[in-house]
Amino acid sequence: MKVSTLSIGDEVLFGEIVDTNSAHIAARLYDVGITVRRHLCVGDSEPDIIEAMEALAGSNDFVIATGGLGPTVDDLTAKAASKAAGRHLVLNDDALAHLQQFYEKAGRQMLPGTEKQCMLPAKAVLVPNPVGTACGFVLPFKGTHFFFLPGVPGEMKRMLEKTLVPSILSKLQRKRVVRTRVFKVFGLSETQTESLLKDVARPDQGLSVAYCVNFPEVFVKLRIEGDDETRLSALLDEGCRGTRDKLGDFLVTEGEDTIDTVVARLFKEKGITLSLAESCTGGMISKRITDMAGSSSYFLEGAVTYGNPSKTRALDIPAELIAERGAVSSAVAMAMARGMRRKSGSDIALAVTGIAGPDGATTDKPVGTVYLAMAGPSDCKAKQYKFFGDRDRIRAMTAFTALDWLRRYLLSI
Amino acid sequence: MKVSTLSIGDEVLFGEIVDTNSAHIAARLYDVGITVRRHLCVGDSEPDIIEAMEALAGSNDFVIATGGLGPTVDDLTAKAASKAAGRHLVLNDDALAHLQQFYEKAGRQMLPGTEKQCMLPAKAVLVPNPVGTACGFVLPFKGTHFFFLPGVPGEMKRMLEKTLVPSILSKLQRKRVVRTRVFKVFGLSETQTESLLKDVARPDQGLSVAYCVNFPEVFVKLRIEGDDETRLSALLDEGCRGTRDKLGDFLVTEGEDTIDTVVARLFKEKGITLSLAESCTGGMISKRITDMAGSSSYFLEGAVTYGNPSKTRALDIPAELIAERGAVSSAVAMAMARGMRRKSGSDIALAVTGIAGPDGATTDKPVGTVYLAMAGPSDCKAKQYKFFGDRDRIRAMTAFTALDWLRRYLLSI
Repeated sequence: MKVSTLSIGDEVLFGEIVDTNSAHIAARLYDVGITVRRHLCVGDSEPDIIEAMEALAGSNDFVIATGGLGPTVDDLTAKAASKAAGRHLVLNDDALAHLQQFYEKAGRQMLPGTEKQCMLPAKAVLVPNPVGTACGFVLPFKGTHFFFLPGVPGEMKRMLEKTLVPSILSKLQRKRVVRTRVFKVFGLSETQTESLLKDVARPDQGLSVAYCVNFPEVFVKLRIEGDDETRLSALLDEGCRGTRDKLGDFLVTEGEDTIDTVVARLFKEKGITLSLAESCTGGMISKRITDMAGSSSYFLEGAVTYGNPSKTRALDIPAELIAERGAVSSAVAMAMARGMRRKSGSDIALAVTGIAGPDGATTDKPVGTVYLAMAGPSDCKAKQYKFFGDRDRIRAMTAFTALDWLRRYLLSI
Repeated sequence: MKVSTLSIGDEVLFGEIVDTNSAHIAARLYDVGITVRRHLCVGDSEPDIIEAMEALAGSNDFVIATGGLGPTVDDLTAKAASKAAGRHLVLNDDALAHLQQFYEKAGRQMLPGTEKQCMLPAKAVLVPNPVGTACGFVLPFKGTHFFFLPGVPGEMKRMLEKTLVPSILSKLQRKRVVRTRVFKVFGLSETQTESLLKDVARPDQGLSVAYCVNFPEVFVKLRIEGDDETRLSALLDEGCRGTRDKLGDFLVTEGEDTIDTVVARLFKEKGITLSLAESCTGGMISKRITDMAGSSSYFLEGAVTYGNPSKTRALDIPAELIAERGAVSSAVAMAMARGMRRKSGSDIALAVTGIAGPDGATTDKPVGTVYLAMAGPSDCKAKQYKFFGDRDRIRAMTAFTALDWLRRYLLSI
């Protein structure tokens, strides 16, 4: 089954808006076992739409086109499609009835010119729009079924679910089973991850493994495709077990979960409380912790001790210690964690201090030098990191690493 | 000048990630007067990449391709491009030198397999990558210049600015003058902004005004196109003056500046210091303040007093006040700002407390109820807001509003 997408619209072509429709359609079809072959995008121009239809016809079974079905003068899709297919553009009675009903239900007057949306290629099969005014339609052209849908994402998605996916699936001769699983890895490069997992894929049996950097994580996607559901499920489960075994505690989470949701869940499960003392991250870690609804049940307090005097004032860190060891040192990081824990009364406290740059570097402490420290009921530990990149990257790496410390600690208790 | 884009990558084709690169490239070129003709996207497949190159060659002067230049087995762009152009794939010495330097600077060991990124079509012209490992390259094919860039947006953008845009501009035969200016507005809706600025556009003289919601701001884009640079500049300047006049202090900033950079610049100019006390925003405001390099010269300290006991402990807010007026009240917001200012010794202190939801609402304080307060040398003021939307939206609105308070205060002194 060969399927491609076609986005139509100047606002997409000129980059005023990002084309999320193609990605949504491709992901939805991928989940039911159909891989889209290509995406094409052209502007609101009759010759360009026709040229695009010519380019995609023949080599695809289906093309899912979005955009250009509205009532304004720059909506040219129906007209171009008619011309390409050599059909007249006629007033579609069903589309008009839908439009009239829509306005009636909304209690609004139909504006003059609105019925332009109902001018469709003769004998086109209507695709109902349950949530908007512009209906879609299906038009066969040179052996390819062209589905035309509105570009408004909410409308397009509803019509995709309600009409297109069932219609395409009904035309699949042989039902293919497709299952995917995503694993999120932190602390290994893409190359290291690939080398660890090199034996997981079984290409001969339909099990593939793909890697994708999603900074600062590496995403691993297992995908299986074939006919025999029972055999494939067993094979995928085996692949997942192998992946988990090999990745060990570098595996942050699976599926839709993120490190933020994992840490939130672990805090609730373990029933312990947290406080944070941040210097170079300046509140990023607190922000991510409190992004999660319900975080008030375990997050007590944060201190953004950005300047040195604030470290002394808010966390009781002796000015002599800062002068002697430097604000960016394991001694100060540990003093921050201990001070924060004592002051807030939390079970654990995490502290970070570092040089995010571009200024502040010294000979022995280049930009990217970061210390993390964690104080718990029985001990306090610290570690030095050397992150590279610009200020944003170093801060993001530091915050993610801090969340990973929390994850690993919570799993260990 | 005919230009198209080509995105290469399974993760884009299958909809795992949305293709933001094409939109960025198209918007950037549009700003210099070049309209992109089409976007095409194919997967990590040698025949598909070659087919796409064939489809785009000839009818375009330039094609800007992104993706598939990394070190893993599914990165096939260089190989496919070589094959299409009938060139050998060879180790590019300059690319290798770049890669080695990159690892050296980062103080890391180059892993085996990494040098695969340096296998490029013979005699390809290198496009330097100042921020990543994979270099880009230029390859002429059937009369079209194909630029190949990495798919990582940060790297692609830098290379587009540094090499591609200048290179394409230098090849424009007839210079069309295109100038754009962007104005960023906060505190007015799109409709309100449009109605304020309805007399600015001069369509008959080539000056257009476009509006675009970029939550929580509205962006206004003035664009002028024509031949006579002097006349156009005068007309655009007049349009800009009119826009500034009409927008008044709702105009946050212009061009590449953001509210964050404006606030940072104003703090440095005015030479005053800041501390922050955050409850519902949980560190978001501190994070945004410290996102800016050099913020340590004016930002002293932040407190994320998330729980009520922490408000009492860290900011000396009487527990009775919280019990009587509620943690989300103007009295507590002002007490937080005053307490923070006194403790940190900063010139001004800003505080926020609110209900971001989904929990925590009461009958008279629904989700979205937020109080901001600011304490300065002579006074302290507070204001109630009723934001709508989900937790993320309410927190983002609160943080942005806080930054806007700082901006307006700094402009007033």
